[in-house]
Amino acid sequence: MAYSPAVQELMEALRCLPGVGPKSAQRMTFSLLQHDRSAAGRLARALQTAADSVGECRLCRNLTEADLCPLCASGRRDPGLLCVVENPSDVQALEDATDYGGLYFVLKGRLSPLDGIGPGELGLESLEARLAAGEVGEIILAVSPTVEGEATAQYIAGMAADAGVDIARIAHGVPLGGDLDYVDAGTLSHAFAGRARYR
Amino acid sequence: MAYSPAVQELMEALRCLPGVGPKSAQRMTFSLLQHDRSAAGRLARALQTAADSVGECRLCRNLTEADLCPLCASGRRDPGLLCVVENPSDVQALEDATDYGGLYFVLKGRLSPLDGIGPGELGLESLEARLAAGEVGEIILAVSPTVEGEATAQYIAGMAADAGVDIARIAHGVPLGGDLDYVDAGTLSHAFAGRARYR
Repeated sequence: MAYSPAVQELMEALRCLPGVGPKSAQRMTFSLLQHDRSAAGRLARALQTAADSVGECRLCRNLTEADLCPLCASGRRDPGLLCVVENPSDVQALEDATDYGGLYFVLKGRLSPLDGIGPGELGLESLEARLAAGEVGEIILAVSPTVEGEATAQYIAGMAADAGVDIARIAHGVPLGGDLDYVDAGTLSHAFAGRARYR
Repeated sequence: MAYSPAVQELMEALRCLPGVGPKSAQRMTFSLLQHDRSAAGRLARALQTAADSVGECRLCRNLTEADLCPLCASGRRDPGLLCVVENPSDVQALEDATDYGGLYFVLKGRLSPLDGIGPGELGLESLEARLAAGEVGEIILAVSPTVEGEATAQYIAGMAADAGVDIARIAHGVPLGGDLDYVDAGTLSHAFAGRARYR
């Protein structure tokens, strides 16, 4: 073995990152140790801090080291609108792409009883309690249009109906710039059935 | 901003890794924090240990946290053979691909006066002292066939001649499986000029 134990251990530890195989791990290790020792230290501290302190927001379940995430804590968001997403990264994607001014609720997964993911794992009781509290006027579902996503949407729609809260779902159809030839049949039939009046 | 400070800092710190842009950094952050908290801790410790302790081998300049790297310390390698490479990763590549049983010398760069990289930066005095000590009988140059690599090879060949040490260079030519149509003119003319007797 040509590597010393500390170098070997760093190379193996880097493999925990998604998309990093043996070659990339080797390249990252040499880059950090040869050119960027201070960045390695900074990354080590950031990882340790995040691993030790980041939990979930009491209201929206997004990742945060505080009690409330920056959006829930901001006070400048409309508490009457609640957008339900599957992953923390979806929050940023929506923030970047839209001018949505309401709050979020992060499921961190979707209903999948076979994998042991039920309403409890998605924090749906806390969503139910929040709907019952009466502050939320509309829910916008931004879950993915897969089988499990549909089941999750149905479940939340039921909860919203019980609480008398309006519910909407983001549109699914042909993506902008998409060529009809290359769109799958499911998306196309969905887009056709969901046609809306043009002007 | 949708991310809390610790999450944001981790995302930015991950950008120091080669080949990691904003999207990959986001994906890595969520993967570590959602599914793999213990791997994040392990990576943090490995980074800190490596950044604090890894220096270079006294003999070959390879990365190691000890005085000598595992190869120089092994005692089962032939000290009469010395292979000169540019990068620590080249050592592993040669170890994996060949049955070479000698030692290495890692330049960590190549001569490039315009970038301020002279013989001193490549540790060539210590190589000279090692040649003068008389234990090395043959040097094998495995530097890359670029302009700077050629200059480096020339310089080391001069040192070897002064010390009366044999010097060889790994063959450059058409790669195995390479189609002559797709090989660049420089490589082809080099391969043609360097033809060897067939059987």
